[in-house]
Amino acid sequence: RSFIEYDEECEFPIQNLPYGVFIKNDDEQQIPRCGVAIGDHILDLYTLSKKGLLDEVMSDPTIFQESAFNSFMDAGRKEWSAVRARLTELLSADNATIRDDVELRSEVLVSMEDATMQLPVKIGDYTDFYSSKEHATNLGKMFRPNEEPLQPNWVHLPVGYHGRASSIMVSGTPLRRPNGQTKKPDEDPTFTTCKLLDIELETGFFVGPGNDLGDPIRLTDAENHIFGMVLLNDWSARDIQKWEYVPLGPFNGKNLGSTISPWIVTLEALEPFRVAQPEQDPEPLKYLSKGKGEDAFDVKLSVGLKTAKMAEEGEDYEVVSTSNFKYMYWSMKQQLTHHSVTGCNMRPGDFLGSGTLSGPNEGELGSFLEMSKAGKEPLTLKNGEERKLLADGDSVMLRGYAQGDGFRVGFGECEGTILPPIKYFDDEE
Amino acid sequence: RSFIEYDEECEFPIQNLPYGVFIKNDDEQQIPRCGVAIGDHILDLYTLSKKGLLDEVMSDPTIFQESAFNSFMDAGRKEWSAVRARLTELLSADNATIRDDVELRSEVLVSMEDATMQLPVKIGDYTDFYSSKEHATNLGKMFRPNEEPLQPNWVHLPVGYHGRASSIMVSGTPLRRPNGQTKKPDEDPTFTTCKLLDIELETGFFVGPGNDLGDPIRLTDAENHIFGMVLLNDWSARDIQKWEYVPLGPFNGKNLGSTISPWIVTLEALEPFRVAQPEQDPEPLKYLSKGKGEDAFDVKLSVGLKTAKMAEEGEDYEVVSTSNFKYMYWSMKQQLTHHSVTGCNMRPGDFLGSGTLSGPNEGELGSFLEMSKAGKEPLTLKNGEERKLLADGDSVMLRGYAQGDGFRVGFGECEGTILPPIKYFDDEE
Ligand SMILES: [Ca+2]
Ligand SMILES: [Ca+2]
Ligand SMILES: [Mg+2]
Ligand SMILES: [Mg+2]
Ligand code: NI
Repeated sequence: RSFIEYDEECEFPIQNLPYGVFIKNDDEQQIPRCGVAIGDHILDLYTLSKKGLLDEVMSDPTIFQESAFNSFMDAGRKEWSAVRARLTELLSADNATIRDDVELRSEVLVSMEDATMQLPVKIGDYTDFYSSKEHATNLGKMFRPNEEPLQPNWVHLPVGYHGRASSIMVSGTPLRRPNGQTKKPDEDPTFTTCKLLDIELETGFFVGPGNDLGDPIRLTDAENHIFGMVLLNDWSARDIQKWEYVPLGPFNGKNLGSTISPWIVTLEALEPFRVAQPEQDPEPLKYLSKGKGEDAFDVKLSVGLKTAKMAEEGEDYEVVSTSNFKYMYWSMKQQLTHHSVTGCNMRPGDFLGSGTLSGPNEGELGSFLEMSKAGKEPLTLKNGEERKLLADGDSVMLRGYAQGDGFRVGFGECEGTILPPIKYFDDEE
Repeated sequence: RSFIEYDEECEFPIQNLPYGVFIKNDDEQQIPRCGVAIGDHILDLYTLSKKGLLDEVMSDPTIFQESAFNSFMDAGRKEWSAVRARLTELLSADNATIRDDVELRSEVLVSMEDATMQLPVKIGDYTDFYSSKEHATNLGKMFRPNEEPLQPNWVHLPVGYHGRASSIMVSGTPLRRPNGQTKKPDEDPTFTTCKLLDIELETGFFVGPGNDLGDPIRLTDAENHIFGMVLLNDWSARDIQKWEYVPLGPFNGKNLGSTISPWIVTLEALEPFRVAQPEQDPEPLKYLSKGKGEDAFDVKLSVGLKTAKMAEEGEDYEVVSTSNFKYMYWSMKQQLTHHSVTGCNMRPGDFLGSGTLSGPNEGELGSFLEMSKAGKEPLTLKNGEERKLLADGDSVMLRGYAQGDGFRVGFGECEGTILPPIKYFDDEE
C-alpha cells in the first residue's frame, strides 16, 4: 500500500509502477522527464535522481535525467529490480521520506493532469509479429480465400516483419488518413485516399540490454532482455496493404503511423499474472522450445470506439471488442529468440509488436476488418451509427489491465483520432 | 585540380569529395571524426571546423564535430552545396590556405592508411527496395516457378520493405554465417546453419531533411531530400528467406547484416553522370510521374570474390559480375516519394536501398543465386574453384564508380568476409 491514495480500479497502484516520460505543463524549459506512475500522480525520477535518492540502487542515476529510458533498459534486470524495490519503498505508506517531507513531495510528485506524456523510448528498430493464430487465420481467409488460411511456416516460427520506427507515436497523437496506391479487381491501380482504414489491437515489448551482432539471445536468457510492455495500435490501410504486400510484405499500408500507450509496464509487475501459453502443436524446434511454457500473461484487452457524433454528444467510448494477451501463440521469449537467431543485434529500446490479438471466443477480434467480416457486416453502435472500417473523426481507445486480488496492473490509454486526408496535389479541388 | 596528387583512376579526386567518418589510428581518445576523401588522404572536417575554416558557409560548423553526418544531412541542399564549394576551394591547387601552411596541413590532412573508417550515419530507419526489373524477374522465376515472374504491382509502384537498421555494418566488418530455420520440400523444418548464403549488389541513399509525419515529400521536391549514395551489400540467407517470407516478407533471411561502403558520394558529385532512367511502361500514376526522367546515374558496379585459397595465395579479387546503377527502373526520387506518400516521416540519415541491381546484358547479375542459376550451374573461378553460393572464408568486394573525362567519381570499398557459424547450443559438438 502506498501513501498516495487510489481505489481498487486504479490502473497504477504500487504493484504496477510503470515507466513513462512526461513534460510538466508549467515547466518553462519543457524538459522531458523520466517518471513512474502512482495513482493519478507521477513520481518525477528526473528530480528524484538529482536529489540522490536513487544513488544506492543505481550505478548511474543520471540515466533518469535523459529524455528516454534506453539507458535504463540497457542497465539490465538486476538494476531494474533494485530500482523497483527502492521505488516501492519510497512510495510505501510506512515510509516517511517523501510522505512527510512537504517540500520534497511537492517537488517529486506531479499530478497527471499537469503533465503531457511523451514517447518513452528512442526506438531504434521496430518489428511487428503476427503471433495470434486466430488473427492469422481470419486474415488468411480474407486475403487468400482460395488457399489454406494459415501458411505452412506459421506453426513452426513466429512470423514477423520489420516495421517503421520513425512513425511510432505516443497516445493522443492524431492520425492523418493516408493517401496511397490501391487497386480494385479488374480495374487499373489508382492514387486515392485510403478507404479501408483499420486498427490492430496489439501489445509490444521493449528490449533490454540486447545482444551484439553475431551473438544471438538464447531462449533461456531471453527474459533478461524483456524490459516491459505497452499497448500498440498498428493502424493499417487495408486497401493499400492488399495491393502492395506481395511478395515483400506490408509497407505503406503500415508505415503511416503506430500508436503506443505512454506507460511501460515492467515484466516484474506482470509476474503475478503469468499463465500457460497456448498449446503448441507441433512442438517447436529446440531453439524455440517452450520449456515449462508459463510464458503468457493474463492481460485483458479492449477496443473502444468514439465517433465524431458520440464526441459531440458527450458520450464515452463504446467497447466494440475485447481480447486477451494470453492468447498469443508465440511468447515474447520465442519472438525475441527467433528474431536474433541469425545473429541480428537487438539494441536497448528496440520494440517488438505482438501482432493483432484476436482470440478464440465470439467477439474477440483485434481489427475492424475482422469485426465487420471483411466489410460485409457493419457493426451497429448503440446510437445506431454503423461502421465497417474507420471514418474521419473516429477515435479509437485501446485499454489493457491485469486483474489482481483487490488491485489492477493497468496499461493506461492508447488513443488516436482520425483526421481527414491532406490535399496531395496543389491543383486539387 | 587539387594540390593533393592522385592519378586518373583515383576514386576520390576533387570532383568527388565524399563524406565519411573516421578515427585516427594514433588518436588516444579514438574520437570519430567527420571527414572528406581527397586522393589517398582524408580532410579532417572535425579539426577544420574547430579552426573556423567553415564558419562562412555553415550556420553551425560544430555539426562536423559530431560522430555522424545526420545533422549535416538535416542542414539541407543549399548548405550542402555551399560546403562543397568551400571544400573545393580549400583543396584547389591554386589555394594556399592549407597547401602552404605546413602545420595546418599536418593537422587537417590524414593519410587513409592512418585512419579506420566508421559507419558515417546513425541510421534511424532502413528500407530496401526491389527496383531492378531484371532482378525481380530473375528471382520471381526461381521462387515462384509456376507464376508470372513479375508480380502485377511491380510496374505500378516501387516495391520495398522495411529492413533492419541495427545490423548495418561498415565495409571491412566480417559477416558471421547465420543459423536459422529452413525447410526442404517434403521434409520437416529444421534448425541449421545457412547453406545458401548470398550477396545482393545494391546501392543506397541517405535522406536529407526529410518530412514531418503526415506531410509527404512530393516528387518535385524529392531531390532536396537525397543527400548522397553508398554501395550496399544486402547479405541474404536464401534458405532461411525462402521458408519464412510468405506472407510478410523477408525477415531473418536479411537481418543478419548489411554492409555499406564508408564514403557517401553526394548527389552533386554525381550530377555530371545523370542519364535517362529506363522507359516506364505503363506510365506511372501522377504522384510517381517521372517528368523528364533524367533521374538515373551512370555508375559502373562490380562484384569481386576472393576465396580463402585465393587469399592464401596472395591473389586479388576476381570480378564475377558487373552491372550499372542506371538500370534501376524506379528512380531514387520515385522511391522516396512513394515511401512517404502515406505521410510516413523520413528523418535525416534514413537509408533507402536500391534493391539488387541486375542488368539487361549477359553477366549482369547482382547475386550468386542468379549467377549460378539458382545453384544449378556453379561459377568456375580462374583458379579452378567452383562456387554456387558463398563458402566460409570467402570475401566479397563491391565497387562502383562513374567515369568522367579524365577523372573518376568512385565509391570506395564495400567488403566483407564470411566467418564460420557459431556453436548455437552449449551441448553441441
Ligand atoms: Ca500488426
Ligand atoms: Ca535487397
Ligand atoms: Mg531502425
Ligand atoms: Mg528504425
Ligand atoms: Ni600525407
